Amino acid sequence: MSDEAPLDGEPADTHEAIMMATFAALQKHGYPGISIQRIADESDLTKSTFYHHFDGKDDILLSFVQYMRDYFERGYRIESAGDPVGDLKAYITISLGEYPAPEGTPDAGERIGTYLELRSQAIQNPAFREEFTEMSADLVDYLAEIIQTGIDAGVFRSVDPHRTAEFLSATLEGINLQQTTRTDEPVGLLREELESYIRSELLVDDAAF
Amino acid sequence: MSDEAPLDGEPADTHEAIMMATFAALQKHGYPGISIQRIADESDLTKSTFYHHFDGKDDILLSFVQYMRDYFERGYRIESAGDPVGDLKAYITISLGEYPAPEGTPDAGERIGTYLELRSQAIQNPAFREEFTEMSADLVDYLAEIIQTGIDAGVFRSVDPHRTAEFLSATLEGINLQQTTRTDEPVGLLREELESYIRSELLVDDAAF
Repeated sequence: MSDEAPLDGEPADTHEAIMMATFAALQKHGYPGISIQRIADESDLTKSTFYHHFDGKDDILLSFVQYMRDYFERGYRIESAGDPVGDLKAYITISLGEYPAPEGTPDAGERIGTYLELRSQAIQNPAFREEFTEMSADLVDYLAEIIQTGIDAGVFRSVDPHRTAEFLSATLEGINLQQTTRTDEPVGLLREELESYIRSELLVDDAAF
Repeated sequence: MSDEAPLDGEPADTHEAIMMATFAALQKHGYPGISIQRIADESDLTKSTFYHHFDGKDDILLSFVQYMRDYFERGYRIESAGDPVGDLKAYITISLGEYPAPEGTPDAGERIGTYLELRSQAIQNPAFREEFTEMSADLVDYLAEIIQTGIDAGVFRSVDPHRTAEFLSATLEGINLQQTTRTDEPVGLLREELESYIRSELLVDDAAF
């Protein structure tokens, strides 16, 4: 997978072409309407190419979850500001999809919707649950490290970094769930209260956020 | 719908029998595997009875979302302690499904999983999105009223009741999403941090929680 083509741009290889077609098909049909044929229809590849690379629909979708995981993790690294307060801001901005998408590509809201639609499959599907458990552990570890760095640097209070990271991460997914399943766009109000929590619970100097 | 038979017990009428069969079918097959036949299989009713009452699968499922909404709202009212701190505790306990289910009925975790699986359909389906927008508005209003009562009684700080209610509600759904899509049961840790937030942001006397 290339560093430059996450979910958009030109695919670097067949695997990436399949992932991009999977994303397009999920956007168009949603998880319940997905099929290998419909994924193939979104690409220049034949159905047999898909069966050559994957065991079936669930195998492709699990691979797509890993692809999204790489995509988010790369995003966090690219946006990293190099200081704990800036890194925390970048984490929130990327998690809430509040950054501009390249022209002609699906917007961040659509990516988050697809992510949550797949995540909800983990409620019933144990293989998805394993995958999302690992994904959450990686994201929480990344955020806990930012918080620990901020504590060591004296800009964050001495909270439990892991517990705070788990809470922030769960809250961000809760905000995204509200935003993608409601018509009244509550993200602005929710982000205000999240920042208020961060200022009073985490920051030593609350003007820094 | 009877006051005594939410999702379990003996159905009071055909509508309730259909709702209970829908719940059982969702538990067994998940949303992507649901069909009228599979819902009918969970009841003593014929498929034609279902078509007599409903226009189709999505019509039944939308009606089921309304049924869950009534179910949650009744739960909050039944568990109400009559004072703002106790009511807030009850809201959290019910939202996180941390109360015992009657023997032989689906446990609260399964109910929350089904709720989130349906909620995620709202990402793609506008009719579901309308329904969940109303459901969230009702629950947030109910919680904001508890918070306003607590402010008036001098036990809660003078926060913005609506903003705090939105945030608590989104966070509780985020916690439930983590708990139902991961294998490592993070709810205990997340609940600790949620209570810490409530003690420091909302309570005047933080020993009261």
